Amino acid sequence: MLSVLMIVIDGLADETIPELGCTPLEWIAPRLRALNTLAERGLTGLIYPVAPGVPPSSDAGHLSLFGYDIVREYPGRGFFEALGAGIELRPGVIAFRTNLATVEERDGTLVVVDRRAGRISGEDARLLYEALNEALSEAGIPAKVLHTSEHRGVLVLEGEEFLGAVTDTDPHETGAPVLMCQPWDGLSGDMLKRAQNTAKVINEITKLAYRVLSRHEINERRMRRGLRPANVILIRGGGLAKRIESFRDKWGFRAAFVAGGALYKGIARALGMDEIKVKGATGTVNTNLPGKVDGALKALERGYDFVYLHIKATDSLSHDGRPREKAEFIARIDQALEPVLELEDTVVVVTSDHATSSLRGRHMGYPVPLLLWAPHVRRDDVKHFCERECARGGAGTLLGRDLMNLILDLADRATELGLRPHPREYRHLVLGAPLRLR
Amino acid sequence: MLSVLMIVIDGLADETIPELGCTPLEWIAPRLRALNTLAERGLTGLIYPVAPGVPPSSDAGHLSLFGYDIVREYPGRGFFEALGAGIELRPGVIAFRTNLATVEERDGTLVVVDRRAGRISGEDARLLYEALNEALSEAGIPAKVLHTSEHRGVLVLEGEEFLGAVTDTDPHETGAPVLMCQPWDGLSGDMLKRAQNTAKVINEITKLAYRVLSRHEINERRMRRGLRPANVILIRGGGLAKRIESFRDKWGFRAAFVAGGALYKGIARALGMDEIKVKGATGTVNTNLPGKVDGALKALERGYDFVYLHIKATDSLSHDGRPREKAEFIARIDQALEPVLELEDTVVVVTSDHATSSLRGRHMGYPVPLLLWAPHVRRDDVKHFCERECARGGAGTLLGRDLMNLILDLADRATELGLRPHPREYRHLVLGAPLRLR
Repeated sequence: MLSVLMIVIDGLADETIPELGCTPLEWIAPRLRALNTLAERGLTGLIYPVAPGVPPSSDAGHLSLFGYDIVREYPGRGFFEALGAGIELRPGVIAFRTNLATVEERDGTLVVVDRRAGRISGEDARLLYEALNEALSEAGIPAKVLHTSEHRGVLVLEGEEFLGAVTDTDPHETGAPVLMCQPWDGLSGDMLKRAQNTAKVINEITKLAYRVLSRHEINERRMRRGLRPANVILIRGGGLAKRIESFRDKWGFRAAFVAGGALYKGIARALGMDEIKVKGATGTVNTNLPGKVDGALKALERGYDFVYLHIKATDSLSHDGRPREKAEFIARIDQALEPVLELEDTVVVVTSDHATSSLRGRHMGYPVPLLLWAPHVRRDDVKHFCERECARGGAGTLLGRDLMNLILDLADRATELGLRPHPREYRHLVLGAPLRLR
Repeated sequence: MLSVLMIVIDGLADETIPELGCTPLEWIAPRLRALNTLAERGLTGLIYPVAPGVPPSSDAGHLSLFGYDIVREYPGRGFFEALGAGIELRPGVIAFRTNLATVEERDGTLVVVDRRAGRISGEDARLLYEALNEALSEAGIPAKVLHTSEHRGVLVLEGEEFLGAVTDTDPHETGAPVLMCQPWDGLSGDMLKRAQNTAKVINEITKLAYRVLSRHEINERRMRRGLRPANVILIRGGGLAKRIESFRDKWGFRAAFVAGGALYKGIARALGMDEIKVKGATGTVNTNLPGKVDGALKALERGYDFVYLHIKATDSLSHDGRPREKAEFIARIDQALEPVLELEDTVVVVTSDHATSSLRGRHMGYPVPLLLWAPHVRRDDVKHFCERECARGGAGTLLGRDLMNLILDLADRATELGLRPHPREYRHLVLGAPLRLR
């Protein structure tokens, strides 16, 4: 059986950028070395992370690539964010993802000007989250916020009277008002009551945040310097947090992960993967790419048989409309991946959790390129790792949920379907007990 | 958000025609201009309208492309034909599709010689349908037939004692006998009784039609001129007619349609699309192609955000085994589509509801080419819009039910999966109410 290195380059695929005449990946593809070598030696294809035309959030895209049913098993974004921030999610604790954002008051509503408050620095953001915590405590609201990175944070509510089944206050677009938090449609009885309690508190927190943050000295200083104030928090990603089947129980791997961003740590922790800590792994363009690759390879050497390596900044650069910098960052990833070419007895997977358009600044439902390498893997005619070439790859067009079966098969961990009565979704290496002669 | 122009070219895809060495579309592809320009600027792929190897009827193919579940939501062909013919389907009215056909009596059965009576002219057909109506009325049978175009018509039965869950009398092939109408398998109780009533009446109608039509003067004249007599009607397409969710409720579009054939009008009306009437739109090779394209473009200008344009004769020419004329007709469609190249802020979709073999004269379960264009849509290497080239398109190979999600995404109408609790099948742009500060 082979080990697996799965590299997920966030928001890697894109649309046609007028100034480039193609996608950033297609533009840089002729200059890539490690990725092209793997593509040439390997099997490629396209993969719709969830389904054709469905733009997934990063967590939904990841869960689907890891073979989870994102409708039945998706616990809510806040769940992952909280785990990623190191918060232990005991029963009775619910969590949301938060953004520090810039809003303008118009006719009694708060209109979003920038959902990320100009990608505020971590230090400013941390102080603002702290100020909000003090205000929450003074107001007697049983909630806490926790800063994670840049504008990002987590809101945690503790108490049996709360339930995460509420809508987002984040409108997910600029120019739109901050939304009223409400219980999900279709709830009744005790669940509805708890969701109502939660929505009420979240709406209070939003108003409190606007009051406290808009007059905070950090924001006054930012405005004097022409920067956007981080004068509200947008709240999203509630859910019915639940225990997810571990990656080991589902697929039989002893898995580890290397990631900088809190969300990705949260996803991997939720699946029971062990963290490989890498100095300087930040999830930004300044992340320590060689260190992350090295950490992943060392984890394989140390006996983990599945290592998930996540690289984030491709997605952030797309959201910010920087296709050229995205292409350059892809080139840096490629350089850092050089040592991967030396791997033996390993399945190497390179793909993405979704396309992100550098023009529209949002995730899209396009397929993303997929690359599979293993010793003696079947090859195709694809020489460059990019959207356009992978369209004629030998693996064809797949769905995210197909990927783990392909990986298991290449890693000699698949069960031949038909041989045994119930290879549970063909997923596990179901071995019976050996026949004892006496 | 972008508007959408969806062009469905009926039975566009085909098999290898010996005299051409390829399909009609592949043969004409190097001479196409508008379609190739769109292909070069856009994203292409293959689409199985329903599923691989499943040859759908035109209505099933369309419903699937429009994102409906054709098993759960398919109301029966007769339902669409009747709507297309302008018949209002009140409760208690059931409808069937009819063909005037040529049969020969052999050993007491009627053997089908031509399922379309030599594509009888509309005027002859209308008079024969009228003669049949008189006979039905004289015989006290609570049924009416209505001519639509060429050999085509609709049979309507009114009464609570009837139910559309009965089999076809049309054997769907020549050389086979006209079949006895029977209740569907698996019915019981009241439904079975009503289906039995219906089958009995339909069998009576078939015999009556043969008696009345075979001695009608029009047929005597036809035979003198060496034409095939239209001496029976073949009945098909019963079903459990039911209300279908409107296109607007399902996808949020304010939709209009341009179509010549009754079936396609019926489908679009059943989905609540508004009709754009175009002079000379007939659904035949003589249809007013430039007028239809112009009507579709004007509908977009007038504020419809989804326009469905149907072109029929490609399918009819395939059924009649005329691949060269099919290719020439495709070239005429291409010329008429020239103004579509000027569209901005619009998603343009070109595809087909099924393949039709010009050799076998029937629908087939091959995939059909798909073309998606939108500003800055991701491109691929495909330069010619045809089956062979679209096989390496950047959208990969899809199912009909995937198409609407791809369209919604390109039109900026998709909901990111994972952001909100229940984006109902990820379809709608669900926005909540703004938070009021006081």
